[in-house]
Amino acid sequence: MRAVDLIYKKRLGLELSPAEIDYLVSGYSRAEIPDYQMAAFLMAVCWRGMTRAETFALTDAMVRSGRRLDLSAFGVVADKHSTGGVGDKVSLVVVPLVAALGVPVAKMSGRGLGHTGGTLDKLESFPGLRVELSEREFLDQLSRIGLVIAGQSPELAPADARIYALRDATATVDSIPLIAASIMSKKLAAGAPVIVLDVKVGRGAFMRRRPRAEHLARLLVDIGRTAGRKLQAVLTDMNQPLGRAVGNALEVKEAILTLRGEGPTDLVEVCVEIAGRMLFLAGRYPDLQAARRAVRAVLAEGAALGKLADLVAAQGGDPALVWEPDRLPAAPVRQTVAARQAGYLSRLDARAVGEAAVRLGAGRAKKGDPVDHRVGFIFHRKPGDWVSPGEPLFEVYARTRAEAEVAAVAVLNALTIRDRRPPGRPIVLGTVEAGS
Amino acid sequence: MRAVDLIYKKRLGLELSPAEIDYLVSGYSRAEIPDYQMAAFLMAVCWRGMTRAETFALTDAMVRSGRRLDLSAFGVVADKHSTGGVGDKVSLVVVPLVAALGVPVAKMSGRGLGHTGGTLDKLESFPGLRVELSEREFLDQLSRIGLVIAGQSPELAPADARIYALRDATATVDSIPLIAASIMSKKLAAGAPVIVLDVKVGRGAFMRRRPRAEHLARLLVDIGRTAGRKLQAVLTDMNQPLGRAVGNALEVKEAILTLRGEGPTDLVEVCVEIAGRMLFLAGRYPDLQAARRAVRAVLAEGAALGKLADLVAAQGGDPALVWEPDRLPAAPVRQTVAARQAGYLSRLDARAVGEAAVRLGAGRAKKGDPVDHRVGFIFHRKPGDWVSPGEPLFEVYARTRAEAEVAAVAVLNALTIRDRRPPGRPIVLGTVEAGS
Repeated sequence: MRAVDLIYKKRLGLELSPAEIDYLVSGYSRAEIPDYQMAAFLMAVCWRGMTRAETFALTDAMVRSGRRLDLSAFGVVADKHSTGGVGDKVSLVVVPLVAALGVPVAKMSGRGLGHTGGTLDKLESFPGLRVELSEREFLDQLSRIGLVIAGQSPELAPADARIYALRDATATVDSIPLIAASIMSKKLAAGAPVIVLDVKVGRGAFMRRRPRAEHLARLLVDIGRTAGRKLQAVLTDMNQPLGRAVGNALEVKEAILTLRGEGPTDLVEVCVEIAGRMLFLAGRYPDLQAARRAVRAVLAEGAALGKLADLVAAQGGDPALVWEPDRLPAAPVRQTVAARQAGYLSRLDARAVGEAAVRLGAGRAKKGDPVDHRVGFIFHRKPGDWVSPGEPLFEVYARTRAEAEVAAVAVLNALTIRDRRPPGRPIVLGTVEAGS
Repeated sequence: MRAVDLIYKKRLGLELSPAEIDYLVSGYSRAEIPDYQMAAFLMAVCWRGMTRAETFALTDAMVRSGRRLDLSAFGVVADKHSTGGVGDKVSLVVVPLVAALGVPVAKMSGRGLGHTGGTLDKLESFPGLRVELSEREFLDQLSRIGLVIAGQSPELAPADARIYALRDATATVDSIPLIAASIMSKKLAAGAPVIVLDVKVGRGAFMRRRPRAEHLARLLVDIGRTAGRKLQAVLTDMNQPLGRAVGNALEVKEAILTLRGEGPTDLVEVCVEIAGRMLFLAGRYPDLQAARRAVRAVLAEGAALGKLADLVAAQGGDPALVWEPDRLPAAPVRQTVAARQAGYLSRLDARAVGEAAVRLGAGRAKKGDPVDHRVGFIFHRKPGDWVSPGEPLFEVYARTRAEAEVAAVAVLNALTIRDRRPPGRPIVLGTVEAGS
C-alpha cells in the first residue's frame, strides 16, 4: 500500500477500505506518512466526502491510535459533548446535576478557540483550579466524588489531535465526516457508555443550517451506536448567545445561579434536556419525563451546588466561591449600554458577540494565547424582550475603558431593535435518538 | 494575508488574485509556507480548477521564483517541448535539424519517469556524454555550435521543481492548470523566444483523450503568447510507440537513422512538423510549407548528422558513434519474437510497451533509480502492417534471457492481430496556433 495511491483513490471519489484508512491513520501516527500527504488526503475528503463505512473506520483508527479509558469499575458513567457555541456553560450545570442524581460523570473538555468558548477556560476562572489531570487523578476523583471535568488526555486518540491541528492549518476543518470522526474518537476513547451530544445550530455555531446539523447528529449517533454506546443528540439553537452571560467568570457565575434555580429560561431548558437524557440513558429513570422532573426538582432546591463545590475543591480551587460567586475575579471596567430607541430586541448575533468577547480577551485568536477570565458581557435583554429608551441593554466587562467602548460598538452592531415582536423560536430544535 | 485563508478561498471555488497566488508561491519558495499547506492548496486546485488569470499568475510566480536565462545575444533561439510518450526521440532529431538550418536551439530536457522516456537518459547512451551543464557551459556551447540539450537548471523556476515533487507525492499531478504552469514556467525561464510544443494524446500519453489535450495545448499557447513568446502546439498520437525503437540507445540509433533519411514514416512526420514550425516561427522561412520542404531536404541529404555529432562532442561524448551507431552500447541478450498467426497488427499499446521497457531497466520506477541504456524493443511491425506466421514481430533487447521472456510476454499481451486491416490513423492530429 502507498499513501499516494490512497490519496488518488479518494481524489477520484472511490471508497477506501477500513484497512486502507487504518494504513493512513496509523502511518501518520507513526510519522511514516508526512503531514503533506495527510493534508492532501484531508482536502480530498472535503471534496469527495466519506461513506458511513469510511467514517466509522476513520473514527476507529483514531481511537486505536492511543489508549482507551476503562470506566467499567464505576458503574454506568455518563458523558456529554457540545459542538461549541457562545455562552455555552451547559457542562458546568449538567455535570454536577447528573452527579447529584447518582450517575457519575467523567468529562474531558476543550479550550475556547475562535469565537466559541471552552469549558476548561471557564473552570479556570476559579483561581488555582487545575484541569490538566493525570489519568490516575482523573479516575481517583471520579471514584471519590462521582464527577470530574479535565482536559483531553494526550494519550487518548492522539491521531485526532495531530489531524485536528493539521486541519486547522489547511482549511479542512469544515467537513462532516472529519468533524464526526474527531468528536467521536475522543468520546469513544474516553470510555463512558452513555453519551449525550449537544449539536448547536445557527449563526454562532459551527453548523449554520439545520439540515447539516441534523446530518452530523445522525452520523455521530450512528458511530456511537455502532461502537456499542448508548447515545442521543439534541439539536439546540445557537443564533443568539445561550443565557445572559458571555465570558469565563461571568458564565461560571451564571452556571451557579442556574444550579441555585435562578437560571435564564433558555439555559435551563437546554440543561434539563441534556441532563435528563443522560440520566435516562444511564437507566436511572424509567422514562425521560421522570428524568426531566428529577432534574427540575434538583435545580429548584439548589441541591447540585454541593457537587460543583466538590469538583472545584478536588481540582484545587476554592469551593467557597461556589457559595459566594461575587468573589470570582471581576473586570476593573464595567460599562452599561442603554437602549436609545424603544422596541423589541429582535436579533443578537451570537457569532458577532463571540468575536467581540475574544477581542475583549475572553477567548483566543490562536492556540496557546492567554485568556482573561474576567471580561465579557451580561445581556439584560434577550431577543423577544421589549426595551424602552434609557433602559440597560447589556453590560461590558473589560480591562480598559477603550476596550469596553470597542466592544460596546461591536455588540450594538450585532443587535437589532424593531417595532414588531420577533416570532418566538424554540431553543431545543429536535433530537436524534436513533441513527440514520 | 494568511495561507490558510487562501486555501479556504480556493476550496470554496473562488478566484485568487495574482497577489494571492504570488504570496503562496513565494512564501512556499522561502519555506515560510509549509509543504502541508501547499499540498492542501494543490488538492483544492485539482478540485476547483483555476481560471486562466490564476494559471497565468501561477506560471509567472514560478518563473519569478528563480533566474531567467537571457538568450538575446544569440538571435532568435528556438526551443521545443514534449509532454512525454513512448519511443519519443523527436528532440534528438529536431534539435540538430533546426540548428543545421541556421536557427540556434537551446533545450532543457527531463529524465524518464514512469512509463515515458526522457531525452537526457537517451543522450547518455553516448558513453561519457554530460547533460548537467552549468549556465556558462550551456550558453558557451550555444554560442559555439548553435545547439545544446541539457538538464533543467535548478536555478530556473525552482518553485516549480519543489511543487512538482510535492504533487508527485500527493496525487495532485493530474490537473490541467498545474501541468500548464509547470511546463510553461520552465520554458519561459529558459528564455527562448520561439517554442513549439508537442502535446501527446492517447494510451501512452499523460493526456488520454483529445479534448483534454486540446484544452491543455490552448492553455499552454495562451500562457506563452501572454508572456510575449511565439509558440504553437502540435497534437500528436501516442496510442502506439513513436517509430520502431523503444529504449535509450535503440532510440538514439533510430534518431541517427532518421537524420540519415532512413527514419520510420510516423517519426519523420512528427519531426518535420515540429522542426518546420520552429523554423517558420523563428522567421527563417516565409511560410510553413517552405520550412517543411527545407527540413525534408536536410533529412534526405543527411545534412544534420554533423550537428548531432557537434553536440555529442561538445558535451563529452564520442562523435564517431554518430557515424557508426552500431557501436553504441548493446544489450547482451537479443530475442526475436515471431507472429504465430497471420493478420494485421491492429493494436500496440504504448503504455504497456513503456511499462515493459521500464521493467527491462530502460526507465525508472522512482526518481534517482539507475537506467540501463542498452535494453528495449525494436518493432518490426507497426499497427496496420500485415504479418505472416513465423515472421518477426519485434525484438527484445535485455540483460538476461529471463527478463527478455517476461518482456516478450508483456508486449504480446499489448498487441492484437486481426483479420481486418485497422483504419489508418493520422500521427499529427491537429495544431493549436492561436490561444483559446
